[in-house]
Amino acid sequence: MRIIGIDPGLRNTGWGVIDLAEGRLRHVASGTCRSGAGDLAARLLSLHAALTQVVALHRPDCAAVEQTFVNRDGAGTLKLGQARGIALLVPAQAGLPIGEYAPNAVKKAVVGVGHADKGQVAHMVRLQLPGADPASPDAADALAIALCHAFHRRTAGRLTQAARP
Amino acid sequence: MRIIGIDPGLRNTGWGVIDLAEGRLRHVASGTCRSGAGDLAARLLSLHAALTQVVALHRPDCAAVEQTFVNRDGAGTLKLGQARGIALLVPAQAGLPIGEYAPNAVKKAVVGVGHADKGQVAHMVRLQLPGADPASPDAADALAIALCHAFHRRTAGRLTQAARP
Repeated sequence: MRIIGIDPGLRNTGWGVIDLAEGRLRHVASGTCRSGAGDLAARLLSLHAALTQVVALHRPDCAAVEQTFVNRDGAGTLKLGQARGIALLVPAQAGLPIGEYAPNAVKKAVVGVGHADKGQVAHMVRLQLPGADPASPDAADALAIALCHAFHRRTAGRLTQAARP
Repeated sequence: MRIIGIDPGLRNTGWGVIDLAEGRLRHVASGTCRSGAGDLAARLLSLHAALTQVVALHRPDCAAVEQTFVNRDGAGTLKLGQARGIALLVPAQAGLPIGEYAPNAVKKAVVGVGHADKGQVAHMVRLQLPGADPASPDAADALAIALCHAFHRRTAGRLTQAARP
Protein backbone atom coordinates (compact mmCIF):
# COMPACT_ATOMS: atom_id res chain seq x y z
CA MET A 1 0.00 0.00 0.00
CA ARG A 2 1.33 3.42 -0.98
CA ILE A 3 0.43 6.32 1.29
CA ILE A 4 0.76 10.06 0.71
CA GLY A 5 0.92 12.25 3.80
CA ILE A 6 0.02 15.92 3.39
CA ASP A 7 0.78 18.77 5.79
CA PRO A 8 -1.33 21.66 4.47
CA GLY A 9 -0.22 25.28 4.60
CA LEU A 10 -0.97 28.30 2.43
CA ARG A 11 2.71 29.17 1.96
CA ASN A 12 4.25 25.67 2.11
CA THR A 13 2.40 22.38 1.86
CA GLY A 14 4.58 19.39 2.74
CA TRP A 15 4.03 15.99 1.15
CA GLY A 16 5.62 12.60 1.72
CA VAL A 17 5.01 9.26 0.02
CA ILE A 18 5.82 5.92 1.69
CA ASP A 19 5.19 2.26 0.89
CA LEU A 20 3.84 -0.21 3.44
CA ALA A 21 4.44 -3.78 2.19
CA GLU A 22 4.31 -6.93 4.32
CA GLY A 23 4.50 -4.81 7.46
CA ARG A 24 7.67 -3.00 6.29
CA LEU A 25 7.96 0.71 5.56
CA ARG A 26 9.87 2.35 2.74
CA HIS A 27 10.43 6.00 1.84
CA VAL A 28 9.43 6.79 -1.74
CA ALA A 29 9.67 10.57 -2.07
CA SER A 30 8.90 13.78 -0.24
CA GLY A 31 8.93 17.51 -0.84
CA THR A 32 7.21 20.84 -0.45
CA CYS A 33 4.71 22.65 -2.68
CA ARG A 34 5.43 26.37 -2.40
CA SER A 35 2.56 28.61 -3.42
CA GLY A 36 4.63 31.64 -4.38
CA ALA A 37 3.89 35.30 -3.79
CA GLY A 38 0.77 35.97 -5.91
CA ASP A 39 -2.71 36.75 -4.63
CA LEU A 40 -4.73 34.18 -2.70
CA ALA A 41 -6.51 32.61 -5.71
CA ALA A 42 -3.23 32.31 -7.64
CA ARG A 43 -1.58 30.62 -4.66
CA LEU A 44 -4.44 28.13 -4.26
CA LEU A 45 -4.28 27.42 -8.00
CA SER A 46 -0.54 26.80 -7.83
CA LEU A 47 -0.94 24.57 -4.76
CA HIS A 48 -3.66 22.55 -6.52
CA ALA A 49 -1.54 22.11 -9.66
CA ALA A 50 1.61 21.10 -7.75
CA LEU A 51 -0.17 18.62 -5.48
CA THR A 52 -2.09 17.13 -8.41
CA GLN A 53 1.24 16.56 -10.18
CA VAL A 54 2.69 14.81 -7.10
CA VAL A 55 -0.33 12.49 -6.87
CA ALA A 56 -0.22 11.74 -10.63
CA LEU A 57 3.52 10.96 -10.44
CA HIS A 58 3.55 8.73 -7.34
CA ARG A 59 0.06 7.18 -7.61
CA PRO A 60 -0.66 6.61 -3.92
CA ASP A 61 -3.46 4.23 -2.82
CA CYS A 62 -4.60 6.42 0.04
CA ALA A 63 -3.92 9.77 1.65
CA ALA A 64 -3.50 11.11 5.18
CA VAL A 65 -4.01 14.81 5.82
CA GLU A 66 -3.16 16.65 9.02
CA GLN A 67 -6.08 18.10 10.92
CA THR A 68 -5.55 21.77 11.44
CA PHE A 69 -5.27 23.71 14.67
CA VAL A 70 -8.19 26.05 15.13
CA ASN A 71 -6.94 27.76 18.29
CA ARG A 72 -4.84 30.39 16.56
CA ASP A 73 -6.14 33.74 15.32
CA GLY A 74 -9.17 33.79 13.02
CA ALA A 75 -7.30 35.14 9.99
CA GLY A 76 -4.64 32.42 10.34
CA THR A 77 -7.29 29.71 10.69
CA LEU A 78 -9.06 30.99 7.57
CA LYS A 79 -5.83 30.98 5.50
CA LEU A 80 -4.97 27.48 6.67
CA GLY A 81 -8.55 26.35 6.01
CA GLN A 82 -8.33 27.54 2.40
CA ALA A 83 -5.08 25.61 1.84
CA ARG A 84 -6.53 22.58 3.62
CA GLY A 85 -9.55 22.65 1.30
CA ILE A 86 -7.15 22.15 -1.63
CA ALA A 87 -5.10 19.52 0.26
CA LEU A 88 -8.29 17.47 0.71
CA LEU A 89 -9.67 18.14 -2.76
CA VAL A 90 -6.65 16.78 -4.66
CA PRO A 91 -6.66 13.23 -3.20
CA ALA A 92 -10.48 13.21 -3.34
CA GLN A 93 -10.30 14.04 -7.07
CA ALA A 94 -7.92 11.08 -7.48
CA GLY A 95 -10.50 8.85 -5.77
CA LEU A 96 -8.26 8.08 -2.77
CA PRO A 97 -9.63 7.23 0.67
CA ILE A 98 -8.44 9.94 3.07
CA GLY A 99 -7.51 9.63 6.73
CA GLU A 100 -7.32 12.71 8.93
CA TYR A 101 -5.09 12.90 11.99
CA ALA A 102 -4.70 15.59 14.64
CA PRO A 103 -1.12 16.90 15.08
CA ASN A 104 -0.91 15.33 18.56
CA ALA A 105 -1.98 11.93 17.22
CA VAL A 106 0.75 12.13 14.55
CA LYS A 107 3.43 13.00 17.12
CA LYS A 108 2.24 10.31 19.49
CA ALA A 109 2.32 7.67 16.72
CA VAL A 110 5.78 8.65 15.45
CA VAL A 111 7.65 9.88 18.53
CA GLY A 112 5.60 8.30 21.33
CA VAL A 113 4.51 11.55 22.95
CA GLY A 114 1.91 14.08 21.81
CA HIS A 115 4.00 17.17 22.56
CA ALA A 116 7.21 16.38 20.64
CA ASP A 117 8.94 19.24 18.83
CA LYS A 118 9.61 19.39 15.07
CA GLY A 119 13.25 18.29 15.51
CA GLN A 120 12.24 15.09 17.32
CA VAL A 121 9.63 14.34 14.66
CA ALA A 122 12.18 14.78 11.84
CA HIS A 123 14.67 12.57 13.74
CA MET A 124 12.17 9.73 14.20
CA VAL A 125 11.05 10.01 10.57
CA ARG A 126 14.67 9.47 9.46
CA LEU A 127 15.08 6.50 11.86
CA GLN A 128 11.91 4.80 10.68
CA LEU A 129 12.40 5.53 7.00
CA PRO A 130 16.04 4.75 6.16
CA GLY A 131 17.13 6.78 3.16
CA ALA A 132 14.58 9.52 3.76
CA ASP A 133 16.16 12.94 3.89
CA PRO A 134 13.23 15.37 3.90
CA ALA A 135 14.33 18.70 2.46
CA SER A 136 12.11 20.81 4.75
CA PRO A 137 10.32 20.57 8.11
CA ASP A 138 7.02 20.49 6.16
CA ALA A 139 8.16 17.45 4.16
CA ALA A 140 9.27 15.75 7.41
CA ASP A 141 5.87 16.50 8.97
CA ALA A 142 4.13 15.08 5.91
CA LEU A 143 6.16 11.86 6.15
CA ALA A 144 5.23 11.68 9.86
CA ILE A 145 1.54 11.94 8.87
CA ALA A 146 2.01 9.14 6.32
CA LEU A 147 3.78 7.03 9.00
CA CYS A 148 0.92 7.66 11.44
CA HIS A 149 -1.54 6.38 8.82
CA ALA A 150 0.70 3.34 8.12
CA PHE A 151 0.82 2.45 11.85
CA HIS A 152 -2.95 2.66 12.05
CA ARG A 153 -3.28 0.44 8.93
CA ARG A 154 -0.71 -2.05 10.23
CA THR A 155 -2.44 -2.34 13.59
CA ALA A 156 -5.82 -2.72 11.88
CA GLY A 157 -4.31 -5.44 9.64
CA ARG A 158 -2.90 -7.36 12.62
CA LEU A 159 -6.21 -7.15 14.45
CA THR A 160 -8.00 -8.52 11.38
CA GLN A 161 -5.45 -11.35 11.12
CA ALA A 162 -5.74 -12.17 14.84
CA ALA A 163 -9.54 -12.30 14.52
CA ARG A 164 -9.39 -14.91 11.74
CA PRO A 165 -10.54 -18.39 12.84
CA MET B 1 -19.08 41.76 -19.18
CA ARG B 2 -20.44 38.65 -17.47
CA ILE B 3 -19.83 38.37 -13.72
CA ILE B 4 -20.25 35.39 -11.43
CA GLY B 5 -20.73 36.13 -7.73
CA ILE B 6 -19.95 33.37 -5.26
CA ASP B 7 -21.02 33.15 -1.61
CA PRO B 8 -18.91 30.29 -0.21
CA GLY B 9 -20.17 27.87 2.43
CA LEU B 10 -19.35 24.26 3.24
CA ARG B 11 -22.99 23.19 3.22
CA ASN B 12 -24.41 25.62 0.64
CA THR B 13 -22.43 27.75 -1.78
CA GLY B 14 -24.56 30.34 -3.54
CA TRP B 15 -23.75 31.52 -7.07
CA GLY B 16 -25.25 34.19 -9.28
CA VAL B 17 -24.38 35.25 -12.84
CA ILE B 18 -25.21 38.71 -14.22
CA ASP B 19 -24.37 40.65 -17.37
CA LEU B 20 -23.18 44.25 -17.34
CA ALA B 21 -23.56 45.75 -20.84
CA GLU B 22 -23.50 49.47 -21.69
CA GLY B 23 -24.02 50.30 -18.02
CA ARG B 24 -27.14 48.09 -17.77
CA LEU B 25 -27.50 45.02 -15.57
CA ARG B 26 -29.22 41.77 -16.46
CA HIS B 27 -29.82 38.59 -14.44
CA VAL B 28 -28.55 35.47 -16.22
CA ALA B 29 -28.88 32.65 -13.69
CA SER B 30 -28.39 31.83 -10.03
CA GLY B 31 -28.50 28.85 -7.72
CA THR B 32 -26.94 26.94 -4.87
CA CYS B 33 -24.34 24.17 -4.85
CA ARG B 34 -25.22 21.81 -2.01
CA SER B 35 -22.35 19.64 -0.82
CA GLY B 36 -24.46 16.80 0.58
CA ALA B 37 -23.91 14.76 3.71
CA GLY B 38 -20.63 12.89 3.03
CA ASP B 39 -17.30 13.41 4.78
CA LEU B 40 -15.38 16.65 4.37
CA ALA B 41 -13.29 15.59 1.35
CA ALA B 42 -16.36 14.27 -0.47
CA ARG B 43 -18.20 17.52 0.17
CA LEU B 44 -15.30 19.62 -1.13
CA LEU B 45 -15.11 17.37 -4.19
CA SER B 46 -18.82 17.78 -4.85
CA LEU B 47 -18.60 21.56 -4.36
CA HIS B 48 -15.67 21.75 -6.80
CA ALA B 49 -17.48 19.68 -9.43
CA ALA B 50 -20.74 21.64 -9.14
CA LEU B 51 -19.08 25.05 -9.27
CA THR B 52 -16.86 24.00 -12.17
CA GLN B 53 -19.99 22.98 -14.07
CA VAL B 54 -21.65 26.36 -13.40
CA VAL B 55 -18.58 28.23 -14.69
CA ALA B 56 -18.34 25.99 -17.78
CA LEU B 57 -22.04 26.51 -18.54
CA HIS B 58 -22.27 30.28 -18.08
CA ARG B 59 -18.71 31.28 -19.09
CA PRO B 60 -18.31 34.41 -16.95
CA ASP B 61 -15.52 36.93 -17.71
CA CYS B 62 -14.72 37.59 -14.08
CA ALA B 63 -15.65 36.45 -10.59
CA ALA B 64 -16.42 38.09 -7.26
CA VAL B 65 -16.11 36.06 -4.06
CA GLU B 66 -17.31 37.12 -0.64
CA GLN B 67 -14.62 37.61 1.97
CA THR B 68 -15.34 35.46 4.95
CA PHE B 69 -16.00 36.49 8.51
CA VAL B 70 -13.22 35.36 10.81
CA ASN B 71 -14.81 36.46 14.07
CA ARG B 72 -16.85 33.32 14.66
CA ASP B 73 -15.55 30.19 16.38
CA GLY B 74 -12.34 28.58 15.13
CA ALA B 75 -13.97 25.37 13.91
CA GLY B 76 -16.55 27.38 11.92
CA THR B 77 -13.83 29.58 10.40
CA LEU B 78 -11.85 26.49 9.39
CA LYS B 79 -14.87 24.88 7.69
CA LEU B 80 -15.71 28.07 5.85
CA GLY B 81 -12.05 28.48 4.89
CA GLN B 82 -11.99 25.04 3.30
CA ALA B 83 -15.09 25.83 1.23
CA ARG B 84 -13.69 29.24 0.33
CA GLY B 85 -10.49 27.61 -0.91
CA ILE B 86 -12.61 25.72 -3.46
CA ALA B 87 -14.71 28.81 -4.29
CA LEU B 88 -11.51 30.68 -5.21
CA LEU B 89 -9.85 27.73 -6.95
CA VAL B 90 -12.64 27.17 -9.49
CA PRO B 91 -12.62 30.65 -11.10
CA ALA B 92 -8.80 30.70 -10.87
CA GLN B 93 -8.69 27.41 -12.81
CA ALA B 94 -10.91 29.03 -15.45
CA GLY B 95 -8.41 31.90 -15.71
CA LEU B 96 -10.88 34.52 -14.43
CA PRO B 97 -9.80 37.68 -12.61
CA ILE B 98 -11.28 37.54 -9.10
CA GLY B 99 -12.52 40.39 -6.92
CA GLU B 100 -13.01 39.88 -3.20
CA TYR B 101 -15.51 41.91 -1.18
CA ALA B 102 -16.23 42.00 2.54
CA PRO B 103 -19.88 41.28 3.49
CA ASN B 104 -20.33 44.90 4.66
CA ALA B 105 -19.02 46.27 1.36
CA VAL B 106 -21.53 44.09 -0.53
CA LYS B 107 -24.45 45.26 1.61
CA LYS B 108 -23.36 48.88 1.36
CA ALA B 109 -23.13 48.64 -2.45
CA VAL B 110 -26.49 46.92 -2.89
CA VAL B 111 -28.66 48.26 -0.06
CA GLY B 112 -26.80 51.45 0.85
CA VAL B 113 -25.97 50.47 4.42
CA GLY B 114 -23.39 48.00 5.70
CA HIS B 115 -25.64 46.37 8.28
CA ALA B 116 -28.64 45.38 6.14
CA ASP B 117 -30.32 42.04 6.84
CA LYS B 118 -30.66 39.17 4.36
CA GLY B 119 -34.28 40.10 3.54
CA GLN B 120 -33.31 43.63 2.51
CA VAL B 121 -30.45 42.32 0.39
CA ALA B 122 -32.76 39.86 -1.41
CA HIS B 123 -35.33 42.64 -1.97
CA MET B 124 -32.78 45.01 -3.51
CA VAL B 125 -31.36 42.22 -5.65
CA ARG B 126 -34.84 41.62 -7.11
CA LEU B 127 -35.35 45.38 -7.68
CA GLN B 128 -32.04 45.82 -9.45
CA LEU B 129 -32.21 42.62 -11.47
CA PRO B 130 -35.74 42.38 -12.91
CA GLY B 131 -36.63 38.76 -13.56
CA ALA B 132 -34.24 37.43 -10.94
CA ASP B 133 -35.96 35.14 -8.50
CA PRO B 134 -33.13 33.61 -6.45
CA ALA B 135 -34.20 30.23 -5.09
CA SER B 136 -32.28 30.57 -1.82
CA PRO B 137 -30.79 33.24 0.44
CA ASP B 138 -27.33 32.00 -0.64
CA ALA B 139 -28.19 32.57 -4.31
CA ALA B 140 -29.51 36.07 -3.46
CA ASP B 141 -26.29 36.83 -1.56
CA ALA B 142 -24.23 35.62 -4.51
CA LEU B 143 -26.17 37.92 -6.88
CA ALA B 144 -25.54 40.78 -4.43
CA ILE B 145 -21.80 40.03 -4.59
CA ALA B 146 -21.94 40.06 -8.40
CA LEU B 147 -23.87 43.38 -8.27
CA CYS B 148 -21.26 44.85 -5.92
CA HIS B 149 -18.54 43.91 -8.41
CA ALA B 150 -20.58 45.38 -11.30
CA PHE B 151 -21.02 48.70 -9.44
CA HIS B 152 -17.29 48.87 -8.83
CA ARG B 153 -16.62 48.12 -12.53
CA ARG B 154 -19.21 50.66 -13.70
CA THR B 155 -17.78 53.40 -11.48
CA ALA B 156 -14.27 52.54 -12.64
CA GLY B 157 -15.49 52.71 -16.27
CA ARG B 158 -17.10 56.14 -15.76
CA LEU B 159 -13.97 57.50 -14.09
CA THR B 160 -11.90 56.27 -17.03
CA GLN B 161 -14.34 57.89 -19.46
CA ALA B 162 -14.38 61.19 -17.52
CA ALA B 163 -10.59 61.26 -17.55
CA ARG B 164 -10.44 61.05 -21.36
CA PRO B 165 -9.37 64.33 -23.04
